[in-house]
Amino acid sequence: MRTIVKNGILVLPPGCCRADLLIENGKISGIGENPDGTGAEVIDAKGCYVFPGAIDAHTHMDLQSGPVRAVDDFYSGTVAAAFGGTTTIIDHIGFGPKGCGLHHQIAEYHELADGKAAIDYSFHGVVQDVSDELLEEAAALAGEGTTSFKIYTTYDYKLDDAQIYRFLKRAGSCGIVTAFHAENDSLIQYLRSRYVSLGKTAPIYHAESRPDDCEAEAVSRILHLASAAGGAPVYFVHVSCAKSLAEIQKARAMGQKNVFAETCPQYLVLTREEYKRGGGEGLKYIMSPPLRTREDCGALWKGLALGQIQVVATDHCPFNFAKEKQLGKNDFTKCPNGAPGVEERVRLIYSEGVAQHRITVGRMAEVLCANPAKIFGLYPRKGVLLPGSDADLFLLDPGAEETLTVSGLHSAVDYTAYEGKRVRGAIPLVMQRGKVLVKGRTFLGTRGGGQFLKRKKFKGW
Amino acid sequence: MRTIVKNGILVLPPGCCRADLLIENGKISGIGENPDGTGAEVIDAKGCYVFPGAIDAHTHMDLQSGPVRAVDDFYSGTVAAAFGGTTTIIDHIGFGPKGCGLHHQIAEYHELADGKAAIDYSFHGVVQDVSDELLEEAAALAGEGTTSFKIYTTYDYKLDDAQIYRFLKRAGSCGIVTAFHAENDSLIQYLRSRYVSLGKTAPIYHAESRPDDCEAEAVSRILHLASAAGGAPVYFVHVSCAKSLAEIQKARAMGQKNVFAETCPQYLVLTREEYKRGGGEGLKYIMSPPLRTREDCGALWKGLALGQIQVVATDHCPFNFAKEKQLGKNDFTKCPNGAPGVEERVRLIYSEGVAQHRITVGRMAEVLCANPAKIFGLYPRKGVLLPGSDADLFLLDPGAEETLTVSGLHSAVDYTAYEGKRVRGAIPLVMQRGKVLVKGRTFLGTRGGGQFLKRKKFKGW
Amino acid sequence: MRTIVKNGILVLPPGCCRADLLIENGKISGIGENPDGTGAEVIDAKGCYVFPGAIDAHTHMDLQSGPVRAVDDFYSGTVAAAFGGTTTIIDHIGFGPKGCGLHHQIAEYHELADGKAAIDYSFHGVVQDVSDELLEEAAALAGEGTTSFKIYTTYDYKLDDAQIYRFLKRAGSCGIVTAFHAENDSLIQYLRSRYVSLGKTAPIYHAESRPDDCEAEAVSRILHLASAAGGAPVYFVHVSCAKSLAEIQKARAMGQKNVFAETCPQYLVLTREEYKRGGGEGLKYIMSPPLRTREDCGALWKGLALGQIQVVATDHCPFNFAKEKQLGKNDFTKCPNGAPGVEERVRLIYSEGVAQHRITVGRMAEVLCANPAKIFGLYPRKGVLLPGSDADLFLLDPGAEETLTVSGLHSAVDYTAYEGKRVRGAIPLVMQRGKVLVKGRTFLGTRGGGQFLKRKKFKGW
Amino acid sequence: MRTIVKNGILVLPPGCCRADLLIENGKISGIGENPDGTGAEVIDAKGCYVFPGAIDAHTHMDLQSGPVRAVDDFYSGTVAAAFGGTTTIIDHIGFGPKGCGLHHQIAEYHELADGKAAIDYSFHGVVQDVSDELLEEAAALAGEGTTSFKIYTTYDYKLDDAQIYRFLKRAGSCGIVTAFHAENDSLIQYLRSRYVSLGKTAPIYHAESRPDDCEAEAVSRILHLASAAGGAPVYFVHVSCAKSLAEIQKARAMGQKNVFAETCPQYLVLTREEYKRGGGEGLKYIMSPPLRTREDCGALWKGLALGQIQVVATDHCPFNFAKEKQLGKNDFTKCPNGAPGVEERVRLIYSEGVAQHRITVGRMAEVLCANPAKIFGLYPRKGVLLPGSDADLFLLDPGAEETLTVSGLHSAVDYTAYEGKRVRGAIPLVMQRGKVLVKGRTFLGTRGGGQFLKRKKFKGW
Repeated sequence: MRTIVKNGILVLPPGCCRADLLIENGKISGIGENPDGTGAEVIDAKGCYVFPGAIDAHTHMDLQSGPVRAVDDFYSGTVAAAFGGTTTIIDHIGFGPKGCGLHHQIAEYHELADGKAAIDYSFHGVVQDVSDELLEEAAALAGEGTTSFKIYTTYDYKLDDAQIYRFLKRAGSCGIVTAFHAENDSLIQYLRSRYVSLGKTAPIYHAESRPDDCEAEAVSRILHLASAAGGAPVYFVHVSCAKSLAEIQKARAMGQKNVFAETCPQYLVLTREEYKRGGGEGLKYIMSPPLRTREDCGALWKGLALGQIQVVATDHCPFNFAKEKQLGKNDFTKCPNGAPGVEERVRLIYSEGVAQHRITVGRMAEVLCANPAKIFGLYPRKGVLLPGSDADLFLLDPGAEETLTVSGLHSAVDYTAYEGKRVRGAIPLVMQRGKVLVKGRTFLGTRGGGQFLKRKKFKGW
Repeated sequence: MRTIVKNGILVLPPGCCRADLLIENGKISGIGENPDGTGAEVIDAKGCYVFPGAIDAHTHMDLQSGPVRAVDDFYSGTVAAAFGGTTTIIDHIGFGPKGCGLHHQIAEYHELADGKAAIDYSFHGVVQDVSDELLEEAAALAGEGTTSFKIYTTYDYKLDDAQIYRFLKRAGSCGIVTAFHAENDSLIQYLRSRYVSLGKTAPIYHAESRPDDCEAEAVSRILHLASAAGGAPVYFVHVSCAKSLAEIQKARAMGQKNVFAETCPQYLVLTREEYKRGGGEGLKYIMSPPLRTREDCGALWKGLALGQIQVVATDHCPFNFAKEKQLGKNDFTKCPNGAPGVEERVRLIYSEGVAQHRITVGRMAEVLCANPAKIFGLYPRKGVLLPGSDADLFLLDPGAEETLTVSGLHSAVDYTAYEGKRVRGAIPLVMQRGKVLVKGRTFLGTRGGGQFLKRKKFKGW
Repeated sequence: MRTIVKNGILVLPPGCCRADLLIENGKISGIGENPDGTGAEVIDAKGCYVFPGAIDAHTHMDLQSGPVRAVDDFYSGTVAAAFGGTTTIIDHIGFGPKGCGLHHQIAEYHELADGKAAIDYSFHGVVQDVSDELLEEAAALAGEGTTSFKIYTTYDYKLDDAQIYRFLKRAGSCGIVTAFHAENDSLIQYLRSRYVSLGKTAPIYHAESRPDDCEAEAVSRILHLASAAGGAPVYFVHVSCAKSLAEIQKARAMGQKNVFAETCPQYLVLTREEYKRGGGEGLKYIMSPPLRTREDCGALWKGLALGQIQVVATDHCPFNFAKEKQLGKNDFTKCPNGAPGVEERVRLIYSEGVAQHRITVGRMAEVLCANPAKIFGLYPRKGVLLPGSDADLFLLDPGAEETLTVSGLHSAVDYTAYEGKRVRGAIPLVMQRGKVLVKGRTFLGTRGGGQFLKRKKFKGW
Repeated sequence: MRTIVKNGILVLPPGCCRADLLIENGKISGIGENPDGTGAEVIDAKGCYVFPGAIDAHTHMDLQSGPVRAVDDFYSGTVAAAFGGTTTIIDHIGFGPKGCGLHHQIAEYHELADGKAAIDYSFHGVVQDVSDELLEEAAALAGEGTTSFKIYTTYDYKLDDAQIYRFLKRAGSCGIVTAFHAENDSLIQYLRSRYVSLGKTAPIYHAESRPDDCEAEAVSRILHLASAAGGAPVYFVHVSCAKSLAEIQKARAMGQKNVFAETCPQYLVLTREEYKRGGGEGLKYIMSPPLRTREDCGALWKGLALGQIQVVATDHCPFNFAKEKQLGKNDFTKCPNGAPGVEERVRLIYSEGVAQHRITVGRMAEVLCANPAKIFGLYPRKGVLLPGSDADLFLLDPGAEETLTVSGLHSAVDYTAYEGKRVRGAIPLVMQRGKVLVKGRTFLGTRGGGQFLKRKKFKGW
């Protein structure tokens, strides 16, 4: 089976070229001018950018979070992703029972995802404990294709610093990238209970109880631990503020390489003012770290443009406003943390970033496609339009304009954090491995059509 | 009773002037040219600098450290201090029994020091735990004259980050300066047991198990906690390395004031090479943080010259090499941490600092005298030669040269870390509150002659 | 003749102490508690700070500037200075005829000042050219007590970079501090003529034609030249913007010492918005460098507080608004550059700095008194209250409040840049060498009562 | 005519992929797996990297430099380039007669290059003066395909700062990138004559007379001028030292974009110790800026790796050691400035950079190929392997090892600065526009086979 995508502007990245893309057997087989497309199905990309399928390196499908469960399973969540131009997710899997090994949760998530996911997927392992056995297991898993693991410095299974050091020491030597949710648990727990004890339970106190110093402190700590561990690669998920970015740049300036930063659209576009919305709507924005200030947004955009931040992911973790989020109605600490965003990401970055000249289109393709692939061992299979790469792509029509609204989105959740926002750019077509997955408003993929991706070890940036 | 010190160069600090100093009733009553010294005893300071009595803001007299006890009690230790030009110590008192209040250790140390100390003294409180009651007690103690407290981030009574935050929040609002022993406990404990399990028990592994990242991490963490706590004043004891100093400067550059750094002569003059000495002599240098590299020494001298470091203290904590230190003979982790230095300090800083043009004589008086007094609430009673100040002073003869050797020193300990070192500068006379305490090689003070000092609250630098 | 100043708070600096000051034969002879003041005249300083007489290291008395002459001669200008608490000026003398030696202008200014100046005075030499002979002359003048010289990088006698290097090379080796008016002449000349050619002649174009990059460029250039010349001491007059300060801090961070920065009250308090005043009043603020933005003001205050800026002087250079300034009515390039301020300085710094908690009272005394004395070879004769120092001082009553208005000031000029500004702090008494110069609103000094000051060579900061 | 390059690893850049490259009519027509190569000539790239043809953005062919002329004309120089993997040069043309317009030198260089150059070529214009007419001419030339110009801050036709500002202001608005030779002329001229007058005429005084502060000063100056001119794009040729790089990073940190830095192999690999070689061989290394220290080399490699430096070019400017260089035998100032290197570049960067893990192979292709193409308006025609791009490429065999020696090189010059140096990597084949130019040791191209390249305007990085 052959397909040819004609007349578009390929965003490889980072370069663009006006060329046709020949696809055979689900892979890109050629890029060229008038390649021999005899017998090929033709897709006309006239007027559109052709991006590599976007990778969302940070989702939480079907996540059990305390008493509640994220409302997207691997089917609804990946359908939403697909409509948004995303053809691969790397899911941050949930915690397992105390004492379970690393394989346990991987296996559980295969149960959840296999046969359901409509796009390709992989899992970041999750580290709940550290022991010699676990380190062996991590090395083994890396050999089996799970080459990244996440460590939390807060929540139930936070690790202590020695554990982090031990994991990093081993991870660095066997090609594992360690992702970190970096917040100072001790201070957060205190502030939360303190505010509650004072009756300060409105959503804004979610932000007050997680000040930027909490995040920047943990970032600095992990950087020092990685340095002591010989420079093991570290990846900070959802960097939300200027102070954290300053810590990352400080470490780089002192010679520390393999330090990666991810941010998410919500930290680029929204601010803590959202917590003050009437009607309890502040609950929609309860996520950790919290939304920050307009100045922080500016620092993050600048960080993206200058290459200080490598990835934009979503931290998609949807809970219904009408139901799960209402748990926090009288006490922000009871509100499940997280917000949806898997479908909105690509258009937000195009509209707020490229269309506003904050970043170039090539840079957009790096932070959404190539960079997560490179960091997490999917490159050049994913994240780029090269011969041999999977024929994952989406068209972006820069001339179109749309309004984001929950009724037009595909997640199972009942709200979007960007309700009513006007965005430039539309996504008329999405393809995975040569098959059209989304065309206009129609989903052409299948439940379970996604494949699990084994990933390569990290060998340097 | 009146005394007049004539013909010297007064180092006030920071300025110097050639003037006579009139002393009445233990206080400086005048500085001037030929003040009316009728009936006054005359001390001829010709050819000498007249410094304010040096303050050692970091000693550990009579300290119980696990199974062993520091060999200087408040008498022998303060006599040694006096010979070295130090007329005031602020002792970092030891831990008390679990659950004891803040007053408990203050009281215990009054037992140890009252009637023994030969020079004036005060105590930093020690925080072993945090509770609402304890915070009240701290505020009360501040009102009673104990206006600084120490928090450890390692050792038995390390506090966690929320406790540190809580203490800082209160301390900042009631004029308390919080001193920190900043090292990452979690990583240190792991590395220590790791090296021991590998049979790596020689003294050099003391340094290997406490890398500079451990210290810098904790410094960064505390700075973020202090920032979150509204900018409460913090004081880092024994800063030993360039990386820690970089964290401190980063915080200052971002607008954090009331951040103070102390270093000690050993970190300025000695390096980790000492741990490799034959005959087990490496044990003599086991202290925490450990000695670092020559580059770190350079960074610290530069930090002193440029005003990045405010204080040079000693961390005097003497254990006999022939006895207590031998506990570490087969395992560095068993060796009591600490080294003597209370008598050597002033001459080392003069010889290695001023005489080698690394710092000026005025700067020397700031870091040894005025700054610790200002930070810890003794200024202008101590640390400066002004009317109304206590007549504490020492003469320093810049032309003299001596060799440091244990037999010439007065601590009860059996070694000096600087054995055989040639130093410029001698201290022919030391006075406290108008009374000559040391003259040449003779001690003229008395057991118990020192007074306990109540200190003022901190009101900004 | 003896005087005793009782009951005040002495600001030495940097420390304060509550003590009495004994004065004999024009010098401070003692500081103490109840010194024997038999027969002494008593000045009651109750409720007041007693500062060392302020030094204004940057004035332009009787300056011929192109076709016009500054309206204060050395008498009226120094009387105004005295009312403002200033007891010493170091005047930046004007250019002489082309080819004249360094002594020529010194001699000319002796003509202008001797017998007129009501307070003590000295001159910075001015370098119009560089030759071997001139370098010899500079070294000779340094020996005769003129130990600082000014170099302009713009205006008629700007030096080129090689000349600057040559001067610095020699200056550094013979104890001379070189002061710089740092602006990029080439770009300024172009922009001025460009704006004029476009008919953009209003006062705001004065600011537009001297952008902050012009100043920062020249600062960077001089710092590199000083570095190449072996680290010769450099002093930047009237630093006006954040970008220049950033260059200075960059050089310091890279190890360059003996780099000094001066700013002036106008750059701390006023902004470029003044140029837009109606009624042509923008002309009142035409000075070089021009007033900058509110952000620049903030950066300068922070620089003062953190010790990045060492001196606050005035650049007092008064032209009547009704007359000389009107030359610029139709063309800002015709307006003589400069503004008055010699009398306002001390109160502005107290009111906007100390009273608003931007700097401490000790820091105020450093930047107005001690630091200029140290940098320019007058310490400890001037700038500090120590035995042996000249009995120059002023009382500052922190409780008083006044309104600045031209009718209450003593310069011969017809306006103040701060008309109507309310300030905290008043100066009830000023003394020089033991003699009361100003008491309340009365001038008790004499025409010619000031003495010329020979200054010492610079030997390090 | 069709060609297929099979079995190699394509370095696109930045990504690599194992794919075949199909070439038709001199252009890349496809990249793919087993593209239909019926009838195509096959080139087997097994075991080799396939790089885009390297671009040397800094050569001086046939340059008249004072009394002497560079010994490579456009034929011999481009043949040498070709052997080294370079398929495009952008030559920095020489000065013309005083008062000549911008077109004059372009025309003259067409005379020199047309019909001679064996590889594709373009010219940077050279700015000798600035006037309204000249600015118009520059804008016109940009429209005609000369979209970069060089300005010297030293040598005969140095511009002053206002001229630079005026040029940048216009250049920035019409898509011109301005390249700078940045050194402080004034100081250099003084130091040169000074050393000569002292009889210090050996080659090492070439380095002494051009200290790193000279270069860094000029870099800082130009950056401020570009900032004042609204952020016009600037490109610094031959950055040689850490201090210059620090200035560039400072400007970027303060938000200045479109700041580009080039370095050359000699500044990465050689040091000022070369000037001390016996037998007068120091003359071989006389170039400006001069070789620096080992620390500077390290800073430049780090700058390449971290993306602070964008381009590695050669500044190829060959003079025979036996002849032209001997002019400096008794006086370094008489020695023509410049050294050869056009053929050695690619292998040096591979061997010292990639093979020593200082940079990745993708980064190598960026700094040698893609980045100069992007900055200077040749992308994606040159510098990348994409459909539609010219089929310019070279194979690099990473397993081969060679010794650099003048007899093995193809420049007309009589020495190499790297004589005897062992390098990893060989270049078995070079192709331009689909035609094999070099195969093994044989040149298959033709005199005049190179085409002149019109370049696009700069639109952002």
